[in-house]
Amino acid sequence: MEAKFKFAQDLIRQAAVYVRQRMTEDLQIEQKSQFDDLVTNIDKDSQDFMVEAIQKAYPDDNILGEESELYADLKDGHVWVLDPIDGTVNFVAQGRDFAIMIAYYEDGVGQFGLIYDVVCDKLYSGGGEFEVSCNGRTLSPYQSRPLNRQLIGANGRMYASNYLGLADFASKVLGVRVLGSAGISMSRVLEGQLLAYFSAISPWDYAAASIMGQKLGYELLTMTGEPLDYESRQAVMFIPRAEEALIKRDIKKG
Amino acid sequence: MEAKFKFAQDLIRQAAVYVRQRMTEDLQIEQKSQFDDLVTNIDKDSQDFMVEAIQKAYPDDNILGEESELYADLKDGHVWVLDPIDGTVNFVAQGRDFAIMIAYYEDGVGQFGLIYDVVCDKLYSGGGEFEVSCNGRTLSPYQSRPLNRQLIGANGRMYASNYLGLADFASKVLGVRVLGSAGISMSRVLEGQLLAYFSAISPWDYAAASIMGQKLGYELLTMTGEPLDYESRQAVMFIPRAEEALIKRDIKKG
Repeated sequence: MEAKFKFAQDLIRQAAVYVRQRMTEDLQIEQKSQFDDLVTNIDKDSQDFMVEAIQKAYPDDNILGEESELYADLKDGHVWVLDPIDGTVNFVAQGRDFAIMIAYYEDGVGQFGLIYDVVCDKLYSGGGEFEVSCNGRTLSPYQSRPLNRQLIGANGRMYASNYLGLADFASKVLGVRVLGSAGISMSRVLEGQLLAYFSAISPWDYAAASIMGQKLGYELLTMTGEPLDYESRQAVMFIPRAEEALIKRDIKKG
Repeated sequence: MEAKFKFAQDLIRQAAVYVRQRMTEDLQIEQKSQFDDLVTNIDKDSQDFMVEAIQKAYPDDNILGEESELYADLKDGHVWVLDPIDGTVNFVAQGRDFAIMIAYYEDGVGQFGLIYDVVCDKLYSGGGEFEVSCNGRTLSPYQSRPLNRQLIGANGRMYASNYLGLADFASKVLGVRVLGSAGISMSRVLEGQLLAYFSAISPWDYAAASIMGQKLGYELLTMTGEPLDYESRQAVMFIPRAEEALIKRDIKKG
């Protein structure tokens, strides 16, 4: 596992070099399901780059990737989960606040996760048997603080519509930050900068953070109380286990 | 003016060193008007530090500061406008995404502004007779792009309540980012990363960005259509002049 973890760290840094080199080029932007669901040629090429390296090094492993036909079942054998650019809208409009993410599972059990904030050059990695760190600095487990001294991260539309009581809960904390990337937001939760994160996202958006969070006292739950299916897009919350009861007072089951 | 601009750049960097040194200490946090309106001992000490330096170097100048009894009239003579920590909630909860800001006016005319993103070590400065730059890199004037390829920054509560049509306008762009600091958000507007910024803020929050924005094709307007009073907290928008007509289709006068 040590070798695989090292391989993943090297791979994500190589993918970041590739993305950084190419992000000054003219982007080819395509719309997916709707006008704000975008994909670029760089998302696709960055994923192809990672897939090729994984298939060469570990030909028997499976891959679940955001931008491809590689939809392995996360619970089936050795599975790499890839998000080549999380926060594509930020990538296109701001050129910052996007991440590359990798997670690795064996028979449904998360072994390690990686979130790489490309522009800030910050690599969060660990989980499973590995300590969680950012660029070599070990992260501390969640330490409880009063709610009114903490911020949360959220999807802007879910907050604005008070989805399942999200705005009710938000009124108990110092405020809401809308950063536009699950990876960037969840890395701030892991750092203890945001108390929790709420959004409607897919496995490649939350796999890496969820594995790292397990080590630091966080858990990923659906907001509706249904089980996490690790397949479809679901409304989820990434929260400290120690504050679960408090948070569930406001976040009502669907 | 050259000497004053240089003095301001040196001063803001010194204040940042001071804030960085002290931010690991135990903060003394006080509530101002309400639970999410905070001030810390470091806000106050950082302002005192800047005030002392200005009074020593320019004893005849006036000062308008967020955290003190120094409420000079911005239109009266030589006036320094200081925000020792913009984004105090971020400072307290995240330890990032806060800024130190300085603006300088003569008889109501902005001469230069500075926004310093302390943690990212990014100094935006210029306006008046000076080019606007970030750490020495000259910023380009606003270049028009389709609305549905751009993001806006906003105050989260104003967006959530569709204040004066803000959410209506937001539905025409790629999305909304809520960063929690006027200075950080407006520096992203100056960079061309965000199209515009909407919030209810005070002169020390918008003075620096407004002066720099003048050089790059941006203007600061109230959302209600009333004149900007440079004294009280007002709902404002920092927008490209080229998109004013388009934005005003949705942002309705009060």
